[in-house]
Amino acid sequence: MTLTANTTVVPSPAKGLVCRNCGATFGLIAEHACAECFGPLEVDYDYDLLKAVTREQIEAGPQNIWRYAPLLPVGQDPASRVSLNPGMTPLVRADRLAEELGLTGGLWVKDDSANPTHSFKDRVVSLAATAAKGLGYQKIACASTGNLANSVAAHAARAGLPSFVFIPSDLEPGKVVQSAVYGQTLVAVDGSYDDVNRLTSEIAETDEFEDTAFVNQNVRPYYAEGSKTMGYEIAEQLGWRIPAQVVIPMASGSLLTKVDKAWRELTAAGIVADTPWTVFGAQSAGCDPIATAFDNGWDVVKPVKPFGIAKSLNIGNPADGPYALDAIRRTGGAVGRVGDDEIVQGILDLARTTGVFAETAGGVTVAVLRQLIADGRLDPTQETVVLNTGEGLKTLDPLEPVVGFTHRVEPSLKSVRAAGLIG
Amino acid sequence: MTLTANTTVVPSPAKGLVCRNCGATFGLIAEHACAECFGPLEVDYDYDLLKAVTREQIEAGPQNIWRYAPLLPVGQDPASRVSLNPGMTPLVRADRLAEELGLTGGLWVKDDSANPTHSFKDRVVSLAATAAKGLGYQKIACASTGNLANSVAAHAARAGLPSFVFIPSDLEPGKVVQSAVYGQTLVAVDGSYDDVNRLTSEIAETDEFEDTAFVNQNVRPYYAEGSKTMGYEIAEQLGWRIPAQVVIPMASGSLLTKVDKAWRELTAAGIVADTPWTVFGAQSAGCDPIATAFDNGWDVVKPVKPFGIAKSLNIGNPADGPYALDAIRRTGGAVGRVGDDEIVQGILDLARTTGVFAETAGGVTVAVLRQLIADGRLDPTQETVVLNTGEGLKTLDPLEPVVGFTHRVEPSLKSVRAAGLIG
Ligand SMILES: Cc1ncc(COP(=O)(O)O)c(C=O)c1O
Ligand SMILES: Cc1ncc(COP(=O)(O)O)c(C=O)c1O
Ligand SMILES: [Zn+2]
Ligand SMILES: [Zn+2]
Repeated sequence: MTLTANTTVVPSPAKGLVCRNCGATFGLIAEHACAECFGPLEVDYDYDLLKAVTREQIEAGPQNIWRYAPLLPVGQDPASRVSLNPGMTPLVRADRLAEELGLTGGLWVKDDSANPTHSFKDRVVSLAATAAKGLGYQKIACASTGNLANSVAAHAARAGLPSFVFIPSDLEPGKVVQSAVYGQTLVAVDGSYDDVNRLTSEIAETDEFEDTAFVNQNVRPYYAEGSKTMGYEIAEQLGWRIPAQVVIPMASGSLLTKVDKAWRELTAAGIVADTPWTVFGAQSAGCDPIATAFDNGWDVVKPVKPFGIAKSLNIGNPADGPYALDAIRRTGGAVGRVGDDEIVQGILDLARTTGVFAETAGGVTVAVLRQLIADGRLDPTQETVVLNTGEGLKTLDPLEPVVGFTHRVEPSLKSVRAAGLIG
Repeated sequence: MTLTANTTVVPSPAKGLVCRNCGATFGLIAEHACAECFGPLEVDYDYDLLKAVTREQIEAGPQNIWRYAPLLPVGQDPASRVSLNPGMTPLVRADRLAEELGLTGGLWVKDDSANPTHSFKDRVVSLAATAAKGLGYQKIACASTGNLANSVAAHAARAGLPSFVFIPSDLEPGKVVQSAVYGQTLVAVDGSYDDVNRLTSEIAETDEFEDTAFVNQNVRPYYAEGSKTMGYEIAEQLGWRIPAQVVIPMASGSLLTKVDKAWRELTAAGIVADTPWTVFGAQSAGCDPIATAFDNGWDVVKPVKPFGIAKSLNIGNPADGPYALDAIRRTGGAVGRVGDDEIVQGILDLARTTGVFAETAGGVTVAVLRQLIADGRLDPTQETVVLNTGEGLKTLDPLEPVVGFTHRVEPSLKSVRAAGLIG
C-alpha cells in the first residue's frame, strides 16, 4: 500500500509443474493437464528456497498478497505484476457469533469482501494475470460463476489488456453490472457454469484465442496458487500460528486445497509451529457433489446439476473435488451442506453479530459452521476461522424479501410518535 | 490488521472544542453548536503535542486509521475504540485515465470503496462511535444519505450496541438492504435528506433518545475529524508529501474541509514539507448549492432542493458549505458541477481505465476533474488526486440501462462463431 514498502526482488521458488495424479514433472509451462495421464498439474517448489523464507522478510513486504512473493510462483519483481494488489484483508474477531453458536475456543472471520473487487478471486487473478504476462500472452479470459468475472475484467481494465469473460446468463444483476462496467468483452452463455467451462476449453483451442490466457484453464496451476495467500494471511494475522479448525466454501474445491497447502508449507519452512489443523468444507444443498462424495466415502466426485441461491458456488463438476476430499479426510474434517433458507440466515447471523455483510457463499459457510457444531463434527472448544469469500452487495436478491425498513414515518415528531419510536 | 502491530497508548492531543464562528472554547463535550453564537464547534488541539508526532511513530502503528491516533481526538487506547478499523485504502495510480484527460502531472485515485462498509463514512463513524462510548452514550444514531447509514448499522452490529438509522425512503436498493441486513432499527422517512436531518435533530431532544449519540449531530465535532485520516493517508502513501491538487466530492462539505485541515496539521507539525496545494470541490447539477455560492462569490450557501442520481451527495443545506468555500478559495481552487449523464460517464471512464468501480459520488468527482481540466481551472501539469468515496455496487440503477453483455451465445462453438467471437 505505502510506496515506501520493501521491494527487494527475491528468486521464484517454483521449479516446475508436477502432475498430482502420476507425479510426472514439467517446466513452468502454460498447461494445466498432464501430457502423460491428463491429471491436473500444480506448481512444484524448491523446498530449500521455501525453507530460507523468514517471518521478518514477509513482514517487511507490502500490505498485500505480494508480501508472500517468496512463497509464490510468479510476481517476485514488482514490475512483473499484473495485479490490483489484493490481500491483507481483515481477520475479524467474532465473539458475539461465537457466543450464539456455543463456540468457546475463539472464532474469527477472514473477510475477503475487502479485496478490490470484493471477493477472494482477486488473489488468484493477480497470480494468473502475472503468469500470463510472463508467458507472453496478450489477453486474459475466464469462465466464471461471477466473482472471477468481476476480477478478470477489473484486472484487464487496470492493465489495459483485452479480456473475454464468459458467464451463465442468469447470474445476479450485481455481478453482471460489475463485470460489464469495466468496458471489456462480456459474453452471456445460456447454460450452467459447467456448460460455460466446457465451452471456454473449446474456445481456448481456436486460432483467435491462441494468445489468450484462460485464467482458470491454461494458466490454472499459477492461478490456483493465489489462494495460498488466504492461508498465509490467517496464520500471520493470528501472530504466526495456525488455527485448529477452518471452514471453507467449495465450488471447484481449489481454495480449500490451497489453504491447506499454505499451512503445510509454513510448517515445513519452520515459519509457524507444526500444530494440527482440521479443514471443513461447505457446500449448498443445491450443489453438493463434494459433500455427497464425502458422506459416501467416495474418492471420486459424481457431477450434479446445480440449483439454488449460492450461485458463485454452483459448480456441478468440481475439478479439485478429489483433492479437497483428501485434505478434509487427512486432517479429520467433514463437509456440511445447507439449504437456501439456512444460507440467508447465515448471512443475517454474520451481519447482525459482526458487521460483515457476506454474499451467499459466506452465508453457506456460516450456516455450515452452525450445522457442524450442532452435529458434533466441529469441536466448539477449539479456535476456528470461517472464510467470507465475497461481498453481500453482490447478491441482494435473496435478502430483498426478508430485510427492509423497520419503521416508516413522515418527517414530523408526531409521525415518529405514531410509529412508536418515542412516547 | 496484524495483531503484532504497535499498540502503545499515546495521550489525546485534543484540548477542547472551539467555535469556528466566534472562537469561544469549550471542554470535550457532546455539543456541536456554540452556546454563545450557535456556530459549529470543532476539535481544538494542543499544537505542542501534534508537533511531537513523527513519521516513524505513525508507520509503527496498525494498517488502519488508528495509526493516526496521535493526531485524533479519541481512540488512543485500542480498548476504547468502537470501530470496524477502516482506512489505509489503496492509492491507485491512474495513468490511463490521466492520458485520456491530457493530465501530465500524475494522477491518483484514493479508493475508499475498500473500507469495511465500502465508503469513506467508516472513518467518521469510527471516530463518532468511539467518542460516543467515551462520553457515556448507550446507543448510536444518524440521519443519512445512505453510506453513513450502512456504516452506523455495521458498527453497531459489531459492537453489540443498538442503533437507529433514519434515511429518505427513496434511497438506492443496495443502500437500503445493506442498512437493513445488520438487524438494527432502520427508519424510512418520506422526505429529502434535509427533512430527515431536521427530524433527527428534534428526535435527539426527546427523553427516549437522551442516551443516544447522533453521530453527525451531537458528536459531530469528533465524527468530522475522522475524515482527516483520508488526508493523512494520501500524504503518507505518496511517500510523505502533499499532492499539488485534489478533487473532493461535497455533500455537507465536511470531508473537503478535513482533508485540507489534515494537510495543514502535517505541515505545521513538520511531518511533511510545506508545499502548496489546491482543493477543488465536486457537486452534481442536481445538488449544487456550494458550486453556486462559489460562482457568485457568496460567503453563505443558499439551500436548494436536490434531485438526480448522486443521492449520497444530495444535501441541499450543507452545514459545512461556508468552511468548504473558505478552503477552496484560500488554496486557489474551484467547484465543478456535472449532470447525470456526465456522472455515469465518469463511473465508466474510471472503471475502464483503472478497474475501480465507483458509486455515483465517484462518478461526480471524475466528471468534475474532466470539466476542470477542460475549463482550464485545474492545472494538468500538476500532480492530482481524486477521491473515490464509495462503492459502485451500491448504486447499480443508473448503470443498468447503459452496460451489459456484449454478446450472448448458446454453449456451442457454432453459436460463438455466429456471434463473431471466432472466425
Ligand atoms: C465467493 C466464492 N467463494 C468460494 C468460491 C470457491 O472457490 P473454489 O472454486 O476455489 O472452490 C468461489 C468460486 O467461484 C466464490 O466465488
Ligand atoms: C460517497 C460519499 N462521498 C462524499 C460524501 C460527502 O461527504 P461530506 O458530507 O463530508 O461532504 C458523502 C456523504 O454522504 C458520501 O456518501
Ligand atoms: Zn500425470
Ligand atoms: Zn460561537
